[in-house]
Amino acid sequence: MFSSPLSKELNITYPIIQAPMAGGITTPELVAAVSNAGGLGSIASGYMSPESLRESIRQTKQLTDKPFQVNLFVPGEDEVELSREELEEADKLLHPFYNELEIDIQELPTNFTEPYDELVDVVIDESIPVVSFTFGIPSEEVIQRLKQAGAFVIGTATTVNEAIHLEKAGMDAVVAQGSEAGGHRGTFSTDFEQAMVGSIALIPQVVDNISIPVIAAGGIMDARGVLAAEVLGASAVQMGTAFLTCEESGTNPIHQKTILESFEDSTVVTNVFSGKPARGIHNYFIEQMNDYEHLIPPYPAQNALTSTLRKEAGKQQNIRFMSLWSGQGARLSKKTTAANLIKEVVQAYEQLIAKKF
Amino acid sequence: MFSSPLSKELNITYPIIQAPMAGGITTPELVAAVSNAGGLGSIASGYMSPESLRESIRQTKQLTDKPFQVNLFVPGEDEVELSREELEEADKLLHPFYNELEIDIQELPTNFTEPYDELVDVVIDESIPVVSFTFGIPSEEVIQRLKQAGAFVIGTATTVNEAIHLEKAGMDAVVAQGSEAGGHRGTFSTDFEQAMVGSIALIPQVVDNISIPVIAAGGIMDARGVLAAEVLGASAVQMGTAFLTCEESGTNPIHQKTILESFEDSTVVTNVFSGKPARGIHNYFIEQMNDYEHLIPPYPAQNALTSTLRKEAGKQQNIRFMSLWSGQGARLSKKTTAANLIKEVVQAYEQLIAKKF
Repeated sequence: MFSSPLSKELNITYPIIQAPMAGGITTPELVAAVSNAGGLGSIASGYMSPESLRESIRQTKQLTDKPFQVNLFVPGEDEVELSREELEEADKLLHPFYNELEIDIQELPTNFTEPYDELVDVVIDESIPVVSFTFGIPSEEVIQRLKQAGAFVIGTATTVNEAIHLEKAGMDAVVAQGSEAGGHRGTFSTDFEQAMVGSIALIPQVVDNISIPVIAAGGIMDARGVLAAEVLGASAVQMGTAFLTCEESGTNPIHQKTILESFEDSTVVTNVFSGKPARGIHNYFIEQMNDYEHLIPPYPAQNALTSTLRKEAGKQQNIRFMSLWSGQGARLSKKTTAANLIKEVVQAYEQLIAKKF
Repeated sequence: MFSSPLSKELNITYPIIQAPMAGGITTPELVAAVSNAGGLGSIASGYMSPESLRESIRQTKQLTDKPFQVNLFVPGEDEVELSREELEEADKLLHPFYNELEIDIQELPTNFTEPYDELVDVVIDESIPVVSFTFGIPSEEVIQRLKQAGAFVIGTATTVNEAIHLEKAGMDAVVAQGSEAGGHRGTFSTDFEQAMVGSIALIPQVVDNISIPVIAAGGIMDARGVLAAEVLGASAVQMGTAFLTCEESGTNPIHQKTILESFEDSTVVTNVFSGKPARGIHNYFIEQMNDYEHLIPPYPAQNALTSTLRKEAGKQQNIRFMSLWSGQGARLSKKTTAANLIKEVVQAYEQLIAKKF
């Protein structure tokens, strides 16, 4: 497997980063398994309380003495003011689905703020060596505090301009998220549709325009994707969907099964679950909500409104209402362990090189 | 440069195919220059009359004795019946723009059928060695006639299933068109949005599921893209945007200039120009027509309706109304010659291999 200066800086054997995936996916078992296998495990702190992040970090430390990273959502700069009427209207769109799931009508959530500052404190307090950010550029103060604490900081870009801004802000590396990626789009500074750039185009253009290392994300599922990312100029890869179906992940079993049975064209990008565009497997809820796109409030409001629906659907293993995040490489997904996945990728990579692809 | 069994079958030195780009781009000079440089030039017969296709082929033969291909649009199976009222309504959407371009209101076009059968006859008559298809699967009869004439036949797929169907129909190779590609989406059997699959995910999944060679298309602009496509399993690449800015191409100079100044996130996929989704640089016409998507008739009707507008805008070098087709690799575009482009890609490829990427 190729090694890069970035691998050395991150203190990892293989340039394979397990993508931070919020919502209970990145269990201490998954994160530790990835790091123990020579990659970089990642805890996604999105939707976590400071207490549960600390607990998750401590459990992970029990399972590995290798480095792992924590990812933080950068809160939106302009908190969108929503009236109670707007929220009620958006909430009402969900009521027809409550029947099918036998859920009572919920109280309207009132507080959408996330404990970002406290999560940053936890990360510094726990001396996390690698900290990545999604949805924007952290403040100078946060970056300085993390760097003083010795952390390597990584931003997420979906365009060249976003990557340039992240470099200027002091990031040590940038994840270039191609349009193939599952889950939330990291786009923070432009129209998200124009920023749906495929990896084979995005990676070299980002590499040409910044001088810090680029981590390729989106559609990378096996050694072919890793080698392709390398030849396009990436210093490491970040794989999400490939780890979603690993045994150690906290992914709902029916979500795993659905990915394992899905195809390259099973997904769409939708904002109906969270208010932010994200790639997931097309299902009934997406289809039904499609016509109401203009009524859907932005993240984090919509995320809070659909929270009960998604949780209950998950409990009932009802894929019609679950957010089945997946990238476009679903046909290449396997039910395996994180250690096996990394071992197989490394071995297949060596074989590709040996037989000259 | 890597060579593959496909290169041998196509009788070319380098596995680089110049994408067929309709609308006057693929001049005999461009096609011959590509073939003379060791790649495979392509005449796009879309929008051509049988006479002009024959003329174009004969001129190309004057300029090269190397093989080149002709691409054919497969006509839609279900000709959509449009009422005069529907056409008038769609045409009226364009009238506000006629003022700016100082065009008189045009007569409504009445005949949208394309001379597909006659184009096939020309291709057979002129003993074209490689014939590719876009927008569907040609009939068994057409495939048989071409094969009896000794032609190598290539289909275009945007999903694994489309590739499987093309292989079953008897195609000798398949172009896998990634979402990065400029111009028209080749999607013919599914929802085009779900079929917007990035190359890094699409190529390996297509390769795994068919046994004929796969030609990677979409976002490939330089040696890095070529090598990435190779490691993902492709037997050749098809490059479009990279050839659009070559001196021999028939691309409008202002279209070339716009691509040369554009970025990875300058494009959108829109049906407003032709009635079929296609990727081009975002401009005023796309923006203005965005709200009327539901009123836009399918190809070829919308293509006929906007024909005068596009032609006149081109003459006036008014990029606000031109279909500025481009892929997502625009930052990597260069003003050069086709021979130089191929030479540079081959040299840079050898350097990538020599220094182990």
